[in-house]
Amino acid sequence: MKKICVLGSTGSIGTQTLEVVEAFPNELKVEAISGHKNIDLLEKQINLFNPKICAVMDREKGLQLANRITGSTKILFGLEGLIEAAVSSDVDMVVIAVSGMIGLIPTIEAIKNHKTIALANKETLVAAGELIMPMIQHKPLTILPVDSEHSAIFQSLQGNPLDSIRKILLTASGGPFRDKDAFAIQQATLSDVLKHPNWVMGQKITVDSATLMNKGLEAIEAKWLFNLQPDQIEVVVHPQSIIHSGIVYQDGSVIAQMGYPDMKLPIQYALFYPNRMANTSPSLNLFDLGQLTFERPRTDLFPCLSLAFEAMKIGKSMPVVLNRANEIYVDQFIKGHIGFAEIPSKIEAIMDRHSVINLDSVEVVQEVAIWTERSIAQW
Amino acid sequence: MKKICVLGSTGSIGTQTLEVVEAFPNELKVEAISGHKNIDLLEKQINLFNPKICAVMDREKGLQLANRITGSTKILFGLEGLIEAAVSSDVDMVVIAVSGMIGLIPTIEAIKNHKTIALANKETLVAAGELIMPMIQHKPLTILPVDSEHSAIFQSLQGNPLDSIRKILLTASGGPFRDKDAFAIQQATLSDVLKHPNWVMGQKITVDSATLMNKGLEAIEAKWLFNLQPDQIEVVVHPQSIIHSGIVYQDGSVIAQMGYPDMKLPIQYALFYPNRMANTSPSLNLFDLGQLTFERPRTDLFPCLSLAFEAMKIGKSMPVVLNRANEIYVDQFIKGHIGFAEIPSKIEAIMDRHSVINLDSVEVVQEVAIWTERSIAQW
Repeated sequence: MKKICVLGSTGSIGTQTLEVVEAFPNELKVEAISGHKNIDLLEKQINLFNPKICAVMDREKGLQLANRITGSTKILFGLEGLIEAAVSSDVDMVVIAVSGMIGLIPTIEAIKNHKTIALANKETLVAAGELIMPMIQHKPLTILPVDSEHSAIFQSLQGNPLDSIRKILLTASGGPFRDKDAFAIQQATLSDVLKHPNWVMGQKITVDSATLMNKGLEAIEAKWLFNLQPDQIEVVVHPQSIIHSGIVYQDGSVIAQMGYPDMKLPIQYALFYPNRMANTSPSLNLFDLGQLTFERPRTDLFPCLSLAFEAMKIGKSMPVVLNRANEIYVDQFIKGHIGFAEIPSKIEAIMDRHSVINLDSVEVVQEVAIWTERSIAQW
Repeated sequence: MKKICVLGSTGSIGTQTLEVVEAFPNELKVEAISGHKNIDLLEKQINLFNPKICAVMDREKGLQLANRITGSTKILFGLEGLIEAAVSSDVDMVVIAVSGMIGLIPTIEAIKNHKTIALANKETLVAAGELIMPMIQHKPLTILPVDSEHSAIFQSLQGNPLDSIRKILLTASGGPFRDKDAFAIQQATLSDVLKHPNWVMGQKITVDSATLMNKGLEAIEAKWLFNLQPDQIEVVVHPQSIIHSGIVYQDGSVIAQMGYPDMKLPIQYALFYPNRMANTSPSLNLFDLGQLTFERPRTDLFPCLSLAFEAMKIGKSMPVVLNRANEIYVDQFIKGHIGFAEIPSKIEAIMDRHSVINLDSVEVVQEVAIWTERSIAQW
């Protein structure tokens, strides 16, 4: 019986993680959950899974939840509550399904407490890969990727050493503007942006998919997970989203992972790694697919992808700036304050104003994020 | 330094194996080679690799070769020579690159002498999988597949147990008649048959590719190598021959191996397994591929595929009959004695006349092959 903590259990990955747990009641037990402020859903999850701990980021909402529930679940509050949930002695594996930088400190504390991490949060490695990877270098299976692409690469890596990778093929659907012209992209509205062709996801990541920033952040995450140089990461636009990514090995062989778009597969793979548990998911029917196609990304029309590679090459504090500026401008776009095409140009402007510093500690990462917020506010 | 014996060094796989050896002079040493009667090529190979042993099936040709060479290479003759080469105490790995049933006894003797087998000969497992697999059940890495499809499945299996396979996707180019109608197939000449779209191979296997018997024999071989039931083997026609085969796992995930058609890759993978050695082969360029497509095999027009699955399901001595009858009728077709479309109907007629028996020994396998030859001659 593997005991898991799901940080961000009310989000898209969190709820799907709990669905996987439900399908394997004899193998998995939910020991702790956490949410931001959706206490209605947290209450339902408590009733269904009876976890020992439920942490709520929003203190006021957490108090309301504590008054509602009748069972033995302990309600915790704020970041301290998330950390306590993650390091609980009963927990074997922590699923980091929160979005944004909030996942950083709980991840680090869980690693320090020898938990296995199932990582669905990009920002953790994007912002702090330089801090985290040295912590786990002697335990390479401490962080199991949950993101579809990274899971695909991880699955394709089995049985092969990291240094046998020639390059990775990081596939991208291309998003809703893959075949649109510059004018259409310039005029894109929020509702255009949220029409992702293949995946149903949260708003922030759906916008990131439309700008291709999502692929850029994934490239930075892949760099850390698989110990790659930037030129070992090739982004391949693959509109059908059937090949979820792959590896070109030093001997020229390509191993790729394929399947229908379904996040439950990479979640299940991480939860049970290295075992593959039988489930009722349909087998990929290659005959019905028609065809699989591949295109180069149009970096001229999607400059966020180039910005992410630039931040990756510069390294140190620059990916923190890229990521925080992107979070802020995507939020401003969702709120209607800026246009879609302004996202990359504004991120670039902030990156240009940033003097890179070393990331010596979590505090420095947070200071760089705060510098980014202030620079944007002042500008 | 891995010391290898290449049985069938003058054939297509044999010569490519020696090319791989040439590319890794510090890692691989050719200890023994063998050929049927092409002593001109054997002489060149002796001069290049200076093996300790060269076995020649044709005794007269072998004597001629012995008179020509001046170095220390020992010339052996006949099947006994092949066996002596395969079991030589200096040899670590035996590459079975001979074609036809001649590979059977040397393979068995090499296994008994604890050699690792790199198996490029389909007939060995097709005819005698029931005998050979029990010999190696406690040493599952004794037989490394060299055939492109089986290597793809083996590469896709790394890090996963055999019983995690839901099914395999055995890809087929579809051969030169993939999109032809029944009339064109009926009228096919040898020169039509030998125009294989993607692979340059020997005549026998090229005819087998055109009838799809090759895929059927591969399915039987896969059954033994990967411990599968017939309904776990799905043949997928994939005209571009880029996906070389793959596995659908119990959890619904698909892992596939891809690359340009080049036999040197699976040869190199087997020679260095589990390591992947860097080489100068070009990386797969997905952008230039255009598209990857998939079709169901047209078993109505290519009955050899169904015959092979039928023989697999019946098991015991029936695959021996299928394989030997196919060898004989393909040879008759190459010699112009029968038409292309007669190959499957004649094989089926012999299968219908066969009363299945248990395969208790190599002798029984040989007796069934001889029964097949006599039945065909009498008929």
